[in-house]
Amino acid sequence: MKAILASTSTLHGEEYLEYLLPHLNNHYNDVEEVLFIPYARPGGISLDDYTGKAREAFAQAGINIKGIHEFENPIEAVQKAQGIFTGGGNTFLLVSELYRNKVMNEIKQVVRTGTPYMGTSAGTNIGGLSMQTTNDMPIVYPPSFQTLGLVPFNINPHYLDPDINSTHKGETRETRIKEFHGLNSQPVVGLREGSWLELDDNKVTLKGDLEARIFKKDKVPFEIKPGTDLTELN
Amino acid sequence: MKAILASTSTLHGEEYLEYLLPHLNNHYNDVEEVLFIPYARPGGISLDDYTGKAREAFAQAGINIKGIHEFENPIEAVQKAQGIFTGGGNTFLLVSELYRNKVMNEIKQVVRTGTPYMGTSAGTNIGGLSMQTTNDMPIVYPPSFQTLGLVPFNINPHYLDPDINSTHKGETRETRIKEFHGLNSQPVVGLREGSWLELDDNKVTLKGDLEARIFKKDKVPFEIKPGTDLTELN
Repeated sequence: MKAILASTSTLHGEEYLEYLLPHLNNHYNDVEEVLFIPYARPGGISLDDYTGKAREAFAQAGINIKGIHEFENPIEAVQKAQGIFTGGGNTFLLVSELYRNKVMNEIKQVVRTGTPYMGTSAGTNIGGLSMQTTNDMPIVYPPSFQTLGLVPFNINPHYLDPDINSTHKGETRETRIKEFHGLNSQPVVGLREGSWLELDDNKVTLKGDLEARIFKKDKVPFEIKPGTDLTELN
Repeated sequence: MKAILASTSTLHGEEYLEYLLPHLNNHYNDVEEVLFIPYARPGGISLDDYTGKAREAFAQAGINIKGIHEFENPIEAVQKAQGIFTGGGNTFLLVSELYRNKVMNEIKQVVRTGTPYMGTSAGTNIGGLSMQTTNDMPIVYPPSFQTLGLVPFNINPHYLDPDINSTHKGETRETRIKEFHGLNSQPVVGLREGSWLELDDNKVTLKGDLEARIFKKDKVPFEIKPGTDLTELN
C-alpha cells in the first residue's frame, strides 16, 4: 500500500496543495495521470470546477488529472487508474457518492494492491475504518458510515485544540471524540493541519512538523511526534 | 403546540439551564412532573447521571423530573407525559435512541396536540425537519435523519459566527450550511447561544437578546431581530 492521508489540502496563506506538491512525484512515481475523486464538492462547487482546481495544482508536478465523473464507467476508471486522489469537502456527500457509484470497495481493493492513493480532509477521513470522526454536517444520508479502512483506526482531520479563551458552549473536538468512544472502540488520530499519515507497504508513519493527538477508548489522550510509527495502533 | 427550542442549555459562566429557569413555570403550566429524555448523553454521561442533573435544575422551579429510561414502556411514558424536556448531547445518538425506542413519532404526536416541549441543543435540533444541520459527530448510524418537524425549517444550534482571525482551514459554520443547501431546500435558522424559538399555538417567535441568522437556499444569509415571527419561514 502507498498512501498519503493529509489533514488538509491547504495551509493558511498558501495555495491549494502547495505544501504537498514536493511529495507528489515521489508518491505518484511514474504516474502520468491521476484519477481525481471530486465527490465531496467543498462549498457545493461543481465536479468540473473542482477537478479543474486539482488539475491546476497537479500540473505543477507534471501530472495530469482526470475526474472520475468524466468516465462512463467509474468502476472501470478506478480499476485502471495509475493513481488516485480524493479531495476534501463534505464527507457525508463523498461517502454517499462512493457507494452510489459502487466504487468504495473498488478503491479499497486497488489501493490495497498497490495503486498510490492520496486524500485530503474528507479524502483522508475515508482512509480510516469509518467516517464517524468527521467534522462535517450530515447534509445527505449515506447507506453506511464504513469507509476504506486503509489504516486500522479512525482519523479526525483538521484536528483543532480546545480554545481555552472560548466562551462558546458547543462541544470541543476532544469532547466529541470522547462521545465517539462511548460507543466505538477504535483509536482516533487527531491530525493537525500540516500533518499527514504516510502509508508505505503496511507501515504507517506520522509526517509533517507537528505532533498528532491520539485518542484511545477509556485512556487519557496523548501526543505523538512526527516520525512515530502508527502501524500497530488499533 | 407549546415549545421552547433553545440553542444551548448553559450560558458561559452560568449554571445548567439557569437562563431558562424563569420561563419554566409559565411554559410547563400546572405541570408537576416533566418527562426528561437523556438519550443524547453529552460527553458519554450515564442516563441516570444526566437525569439527576436535569432534576436538580428543574427542582428550582418546583417541577419534578423523571427520565424516560425509568419507565418500563417509553411509548406509554410519552403518551402520559404532562410535559417533555429533551437535553443536549450527541444528536446522532439521540435520534438513534428515539427511533430504537419507537418514540420519535410519539413525541411528535403529543407535542402537536398540546404537551409542552422544551429542547436544548440536540433537543432543539430535532425540533426541525431533519437533524442534518447538527454540529455533532456521527458516532452512531441512525435509521433516518428525519426528526420532529415542529417548525417548518431546520435549526443550527450553538450557531457560531466565522472567526475572522482564524488561520484554521476547516469549514466555517456558514460554509457547512451552504453545503447543506446544495442538496436540501429548507431554510436554516442559526440560533446563537442565549437565543431560543418559542412556539405558541402555531406561532414561532425568536426570543432572547440576540439576533439569529437565516440561511435560505441560493440567497445571501441575513439577520433577524428578537421578536421576529418565523411562522411563515419555509
